[in-house]
Amino acid sequence: MKTLAVKTTALLIAAGLGLGAGASFAAESLQDVMKRRNLTQQDLLAAAKTYTPTGGRDEFLAFASGGQSGQMLVYGVPSMRILKYIGVFTPEPWQGYGFDEESKAVLAQGRIDGKDIMWGDTHHPAISETNGEYDGQFLFINDKSNPRLAVIDLRDFETKQIVVNPIMKSEHGGAFATPNTEYIIEASQYASPLENQKFYPLEQFNEKYRGALTYWKFDREHGKLKPEESFSLELPPYSQDLSDAGKLVSDGWSFTNSFCTERYVGGIEKGRPPYEAGCSAKDTDYMHVVNWKRAAELAKDDSKVQIINNHRVIMMETAIKEGILFLIPEPKSPHGVDVTPDGKLIVVNGKLDTHMSVYSFEKIMDAIKNKRFESTDPYGIPVLSMKDTLHTQVEVGLGPLHTQFDSKECIAYTSLYVDSMVAKWNFCEGKLLDKIAIHYNVGHLMTMEGDTTKPKGKYLVALNKLSIDRFNPVGPLHPQNHQLIDISNDKMQLLYDMPLPLGEPHYVVGIEASKLRPAVRYKVGTNTRTDTQHEGMVRAGEEKVVRDGNKVSVYGTLIRSHITPETIEVEQGDEVTVYLTNLERAQDETHGFTVSTYNVHASVEPGKTVSVKFTADKEGVYPYYCTEFCSALHLEMQGYLLVKPKGWKPEAGASLAAGNYTEDDYKKTLKKVADTQVVIDQVVGFIFSKDYKAYPEVVALVEDAVDQLNKTKEAKAKHEAAAQQMDWEQANLWAEQVWQYQVKAADIGLRAKTFLEQKGAK
Amino acid sequence: MKTLAVKTTALLIAAGLGLGAGASFAAESLQDVMKRRNLTQQDLLAAAKTYTPTGGRDEFLAFASGGQSGQMLVYGVPSMRILKYIGVFTPEPWQGYGFDEESKAVLAQGRIDGKDIMWGDTHHPAISETNGEYDGQFLFINDKSNPRLAVIDLRDFETKQIVVNPIMKSEHGGAFATPNTEYIIEASQYASPLENQKFYPLEQFNEKYRGALTYWKFDREHGKLKPEESFSLELPPYSQDLSDAGKLVSDGWSFTNSFCTERYVGGIEKGRPPYEAGCSAKDTDYMHVVNWKRAAELAKDDSKVQIINNHRVIMMETAIKEGILFLIPEPKSPHGVDVTPDGKLIVVNGKLDTHMSVYSFEKIMDAIKNKRFESTDPYGIPVLSMKDTLHTQVEVGLGPLHTQFDSKECIAYTSLYVDSMVAKWNFCEGKLLDKIAIHYNVGHLMTMEGDTTKPKGKYLVALNKLSIDRFNPVGPLHPQNHQLIDISNDKMQLLYDMPLPLGEPHYVVGIEASKLRPAVRYKVGTNTRTDTQHEGMVRAGEEKVVRDGNKVSVYGTLIRSHITPETIEVEQGDEVTVYLTNLERAQDETHGFTVSTYNVHASVEPGKTVSVKFTADKEGVYPYYCTEFCSALHLEMQGYLLVKPKGWKPEAGASLAAGNYTEDDYKKTLKKVADTQVVIDQVVGFIFSKDYKAYPEVVALVEDAVDQLNKTKEAKAKHEAAAQQMDWEQANLWAEQVWQYQVKAADIGLRAKTFLEQKGAK
Repeated sequence: MKTLAVKTTALLIAAGLGLGAGASFAAESLQDVMKRRNLTQQDLLAAAKTYTPTGGRDEFLAFASGGQSGQMLVYGVPSMRILKYIGVFTPEPWQGYGFDEESKAVLAQGRIDGKDIMWGDTHHPAISETNGEYDGQFLFINDKSNPRLAVIDLRDFETKQIVVNPIMKSEHGGAFATPNTEYIIEASQYASPLENQKFYPLEQFNEKYRGALTYWKFDREHGKLKPEESFSLELPPYSQDLSDAGKLVSDGWSFTNSFCTERYVGGIEKGRPPYEAGCSAKDTDYMHVVNWKRAAELAKDDSKVQIINNHRVIMMETAIKEGILFLIPEPKSPHGVDVTPDGKLIVVNGKLDTHMSVYSFEKIMDAIKNKRFESTDPYGIPVLSMKDTLHTQVEVGLGPLHTQFDSKECIAYTSLYVDSMVAKWNFCEGKLLDKIAIHYNVGHLMTMEGDTTKPKGKYLVALNKLSIDRFNPVGPLHPQNHQLIDISNDKMQLLYDMPLPLGEPHYVVGIEASKLRPAVRYKVGTNTRTDTQHEGMVRAGEEKVVRDGNKVSVYGTLIRSHITPETIEVEQGDEVTVYLTNLERAQDETHGFTVSTYNVHASVEPGKTVSVKFTADKEGVYPYYCTEFCSALHLEMQGYLLVKPKGWKPEAGASLAAGNYTEDDYKKTLKKVADTQVVIDQVVGFIFSKDYKAYPEVVALVEDAVDQLNKTKEAKAKHEAAAQQMDWEQANLWAEQVWQYQVKAADIGLRAKTFLEQKGAK
Repeated sequence: MKTLAVKTTALLIAAGLGLGAGASFAAESLQDVMKRRNLTQQDLLAAAKTYTPTGGRDEFLAFASGGQSGQMLVYGVPSMRILKYIGVFTPEPWQGYGFDEESKAVLAQGRIDGKDIMWGDTHHPAISETNGEYDGQFLFINDKSNPRLAVIDLRDFETKQIVVNPIMKSEHGGAFATPNTEYIIEASQYASPLENQKFYPLEQFNEKYRGALTYWKFDREHGKLKPEESFSLELPPYSQDLSDAGKLVSDGWSFTNSFCTERYVGGIEKGRPPYEAGCSAKDTDYMHVVNWKRAAELAKDDSKVQIINNHRVIMMETAIKEGILFLIPEPKSPHGVDVTPDGKLIVVNGKLDTHMSVYSFEKIMDAIKNKRFESTDPYGIPVLSMKDTLHTQVEVGLGPLHTQFDSKECIAYTSLYVDSMVAKWNFCEGKLLDKIAIHYNVGHLMTMEGDTTKPKGKYLVALNKLSIDRFNPVGPLHPQNHQLIDISNDKMQLLYDMPLPLGEPHYVVGIEASKLRPAVRYKVGTNTRTDTQHEGMVRAGEEKVVRDGNKVSVYGTLIRSHITPETIEVEQGDEVTVYLTNLERAQDETHGFTVSTYNVHASVEPGKTVSVKFTADKEGVYPYYCTEFCSALHLEMQGYLLVKPKGWKPEAGASLAAGNYTEDDYKKTLKKVADTQVVIDQVVGFIFSKDYKAYPEVVALVEDAVDQLNKTKEAKAKHEAAAQQMDWEQANLWAEQVWQYQVKAADIGLRAKTFLEQKGAK
């Protein structure tokens, strides 16, 4: 076996010497590459504006809804690299979401009529705001198909809460935050009876079907929506759509679009023209103007609300009487309603109109104050006239859909669905400034913090609804295409096409990355869905199995590279709960856990405690293992669930097969350990000879390596004790375990060494 | 309302004139941008090598396993943009996967012990091969946790089949194709009893626990694995790992690694050293050498197999007697076993060794032929010596894990997990050539078609298991990092860091994009999971609702922008099946379908027929709608499921509310239609004045636009008939419907026009 002797020492040194670790030279010139890849100067400029070298950071992070995937996703701007999908309404096993007990409890909050809903149709995310600016603390997202809202904590990018709308049957117009995140606004889409599980025929559409606006109270301290302090407004059976909260001068008011104010009911199958014809027959629909601050006060007064499905609803009659609800005609079939950064103007886009219509908050208030109404709608709601409330109109193109704002004064950008273009225009003066073709059929668009009081400009993302020919074909179902556009100059410049591989984002919010400070680890023993200490937490050495009748609770731990315990023995029929605490402190040292064929999975990040639960209903042998490639010995991070038939008894004297190791084996292993330590000392020497403390990344690596080396002490004590008793098998294996820790420490040390070399540390 | 009159005509023309559609100029120079973004010349070169302008194509497509996400993903090389996640073992609603009946049937094939498994732990994908080269027809992927294999058809990137391994309890070593995809090889991981639901204590590990190798017969014509023609080999209770099939000279043989040939059983909780110590105590493990062609013959002979769980298993005793199974020592704890492109050598990496060990197939055959065995293993399997079979060994670094090959002769690349490096070396001469640092801890790596008989060189992707500090932080759970490396020169050059936002890819296969020719639409009425005509298909005008007792079948269609039917009326308790056919032919015109709160969703690509099924167990009004933003009137693509209480009867004389349209409204709509037609004619005139037929994309758009305009005929007939009868409501609304089709045609026409302008068509 000589040729095979593990030359750890030599190799560690060779690796340490950094063979080939320096910069490589380029055989092709830039001109060669441009010619070969058919790139123009313009392309090269776009490449330079978006390319982010290894270890580089994006200036902005974008949070996009995943549409029918029921998830959220996060990507960097300008690199347009997707960093994470976050499980929200749909189970997702990589994150253990819906496969561990803690996240199942979150999903269970979203049950409707007593049943699990295993997906969502997410649309419009919102970031929590302070004084009308994004504060980077929380993210909110709605579910159109199953009217719900979810709260994601941006400290760990996990979904913490789901609430079910108590009165809506469908919902498109969420989530929109008020300027200090007092409330999250959610608007119904397709009118339905507010009562649950109650049928009324379509012939009673005008009388029994209703729209609604829900204002969800948010408790920032606990990061939770509070259903008991939330309320709704009953609205006419128009299809309410998007909202925006007023800000600064208009704070306290909110604005909500609608379409199909024709209250048309289709029926192709009965010879009636389809909804699309009847719902866009009139030239205008209605913008709803709501005094939400006053509404919030009224909602506390029992005499002003009706309780529907245990929820406080201000009925239209009350809202009209109290003067908190008004309508203004707006161009037909609108989508976006967007308050300008100064809060003074409200921009509306009617998809079947060609104008941007800019309303003045001051004029709206003036008309309300003077009760200057042009009419009432069929439900008695006062209607203000466009003439009285418009600031300006400007023709921008076909299919205007949504508007966002620039850091430059008076500058707005509007997506044009039918034109497949984005328009840049001045909303103060009502002037079109520039248009750029996109590919194809843009829905929403986003500028950086472009719906806040302090937009950041620089970039715009067009959320195109069709990609058609933009990418390599991947079958009939195409990716979406988010196009990045440079808006820092007078003319817009297309920079990058980003395919969306999963889901159909409808809207996205972009925030300065510097505002986010997510954690890389949890306090040890954290239930991350409740942010409390987990009852199943144990520390190293405290692992145990507790049986209570047929309930077996396993309190285990995870660390490179073993699961404690390594065997779980139960009887068929036992209800098994496995609690697992990840003892790692090192960044990115996540472990996973599954038991073969028992349909459970957990992702256990450093510090997290999580549990999986199953009934051991089938006899047999079921391997469990760590599912996250965590170290060189990851595949050996394994164990067996043994499900014994009831009453099974072991044979007398049965024992595990011996390995037959000798004193020589032990000595050989000790030699390997000693040799390896020499190398580790050299790597340590190298690191300590540099100003490694100037690099927090290296300090963290050194701490992790020291942790690993500290673990050798216990294993060393064990192999020495076994050797004392001439138990060469135990002695040899515990010595091997010392070496395992050394390999991990060497791995970490080498990473630190390479880091210092690449940074040119002194 | 004058200010609001929809100036469609003027706007279509304005858009047609292409205001601002030309190239924009850059205010910042390349030098400015490099300085601002801190880019080196080397970075710029990397940017130029990876940046892909709008509409550009990637030269290669990579198919990666999604690890614990249970999915597959597809990305382009060198742009490193993810194009699609493919639902495989885990339900995924965007694709309707697990939410429509057809895909539920695929997932149901993967039930184990009678229960649904809602996720998978995917590891090693394989592309179907012809003569040892990728043919781009099918993709295979395994599930480690729940031993299964799935087949994905690369014509539409959909999962078509899942098979459950009949004898394994865990499985890591799949999927590997033989050179003509005769068989797909799957190896067990953690030894377990081959019987199902049968417990044996760990004290009987050596006697009752077993490994196995399954050879799944593949029927290329039908794109299906055939369980009844598949077979397995019983193996010792080592942890078998990866395999590779021989090719060319070594065709007919396969090679499978193993670790923990110590047969060690851990038990920290009982004071025993952990698996990681006992499973890596010996210096060598065993490579399994199998004559699979001979095994396939034997497996057909009833006297040579044992039937276990209805599956044909060649037991070790038979395999030894028939001379089809041999072992060779290999460096300890290996992962990859990789046959060189010429089929002559087999490269093995032991993760705890520092060498690459290169075995000679000729020497192996010679030793077998001459029965030159150094020993037998505890189960009597002949063991060939390393000395007799090694071609060469070369020291490359710490933690070598997996090897792929270059298009250049004798050149291989090996990932070094502990070193966090990739080594380039010569396997003919046994010489290390270059090393490059990656970030961090690379598992598998991939070169383009690098495990075939004809590797394509050019690029290498390092699948790093840790990303740590490479990206903007997104919480404790980090993305993975795939690093793209240029291997076209002597020195390797790092080009790009790609975060993986969902799942942990373990292995990836890269294929020339030109080998794939996926479809963009289906033949109308296709059940895409079985590739047969769907029994629920109907054509336009044939939509119907069929009731059979309490079973209601709705045969509907989808087209921009309405669902037929627009109302579905059932009684509480009815079992409802909704069949939907997407009548679109246009590329990327997917529609979605859901019924609020009924937990169903379908993605219906052009031509597909799909069904969703639910019990209407709750009374009430449940909106349904198209979930894919498909046109400007997408939000109006809606309908109502009305669940009536049993026995409910409508009031006599009840009717839908009227819209009160007048003859004037009708005339106004007719005028709008006529004006719009003028503009459409102008756009058409522009297109026809160019050589548009030179552009297949434009030809497809023109066909789609003509389709839309053809639909106006029926609506026109209807509004004229209604006008004849002075039914102004019907007349006006059907005229509006004509206009809806015109808007869609104009949308498409404008896309075609912009395309021609941007291409500078003559």
